[in-house]
Amino acid sequence: MGAEERLAALKLELPPAPKPMALYVTALRMGDLVYVSGHGPLKPDGSLIKGKVGADADVELGIAAARQTGLAILATLRDHLGSLDKVVRLVKSLGMVNCTPEFGDQPKVINGYSELMKDVFGAEAGVGVRSAVGMGSLPGGIAVEIEAVFQVKD
Amino acid sequence: MGAEERLAALKLELPPAPKPMALYVTALRMGDLVYVSGHGPLKPDGSLIKGKVGADADVELGIAAARQTGLAILATLRDHLGSLDKVVRLVKSLGMVNCTPEFGDQPKVINGYSELMKDVFGAEAGVGVRSAVGMGSLPGGIAVEIEAVFQVKD
Amino acid sequence: MGAEERLAALKLELPPAPKPMALYVTALRMGDLVYVSGHGPLKPDGSLIKGKVGADADVELGIAAARQTGLAILATLRDHLGSLDKVVRLVKSLGMVNCTPEFGDQPKVINGYSELMKDVFGAEAGVGVRSAVGMGSLPGGIAVEIEAVFQVKD
Repeated sequence: MGAEERLAALKLELPPAPKPMALYVTALRMGDLVYVSGHGPLKPDGSLIKGKVGADADVELGIAAARQTGLAILATLRDHLGSLDKVVRLVKSLGMVNCTPEFGDQPKVINGYSELMKDVFGAEAGVGVRSAVGMGSLPGGIAVEIEAVFQVKD
Repeated sequence: MGAEERLAALKLELPPAPKPMALYVTALRMGDLVYVSGHGPLKPDGSLIKGKVGADADVELGIAAARQTGLAILATLRDHLGSLDKVVRLVKSLGMVNCTPEFGDQPKVINGYSELMKDVFGAEAGVGVRSAVGMGSLPGGIAVEIEAVFQVKD
Repeated sequence: MGAEERLAALKLELPPAPKPMALYVTALRMGDLVYVSGHGPLKPDGSLIKGKVGADADVELGIAAARQTGLAILATLRDHLGSLDKVVRLVKSLGMVNCTPEFGDQPKVINGYSELMKDVFGAEAGVGVRSAVGMGSLPGGIAVEIEAVFQVKD
């Protein structure tokens, strides 16, 4: 089963492919890699999930934000590639959580994204290397930002 | 018009190519990519722009620091490549802003760097993927640190 | 002298190769590069060095944590490659320090890792590009997290 078929079976709704918020492109292909810009938790209605985990947001909101960020990244990939079936595998992700200095469950939060990637691309191709870390702040107060690299084929 | 000609037309002054502040090299070529270490806002007089945006520094200082960081990166690239005309394109940047936990205009700050890259390398080759995020702190209290990857040719 | 021989001469003890703490792999090979996930300061007894540098931890603890993180990365590389002699060079490191907003000696802290890499892989192959930055927080309160890319051969 390909990624597009899995996505349909999971009844997942992608947000519209995000527009750049500033002077960058959302994705760029170099050889067989696609570099993906830092994405936020963009919802289908165009709003973003905001909050500082450990203060005005809890771990569950963080997990949902990480998952929503993954859906935004999928929207960008489909927009750039034409189809998610051109993704060979997830290579690398940097998962950044907007949280308090005392917060320590960044891996649990970023799993909201990683579980989605596994569900869509499979247990081997959907699991790459990763860092999950706590940021002092993120643009517009979003709860999570993730940048990633994927291997692709024509 | 090539990057060196554009740089001259813009009358931009590059700082001296930064020396490593610790045990690393400022740039490293692997195939057709040059990986660039995290750079700070080094000025031609050798000083660095410091400050925490949202506290003792405002957005305008942050933008100026991001632009100055871009000039330092250009100095490193020219030093390693011999000429900026060997840059094919900007691939990827991680823009890190030293700011308060409440600050949310990281994309605006990092645009100070991204506008410079567009001016020097052009609207296509000078615009890559990017993350703009808020750090808890940066070395020596510098206002901005940016690491990047460029595609180059011989 | 190869890396394995140098490691033996230095009488360095590697911790057990870290298991993923969440949904990711610790290392992934793509062509001649190995991408390494964010690692923490894992000790041979399985515990992690924790602390916030500038608050409940000092620079010396940070340096020791960075070095221990390097040993954990070496354990992962040996586990994935069979031997550290397959490492051609260190390409890139992102060194993240769990520290206070006022802390500014991240380069000194991350040198604990960089000195180790130089000792094991040599003054040319063991020194790559690097960023050393201050994070708001890290998983489980660890003092340092480092992700890296290495060039490898068969």
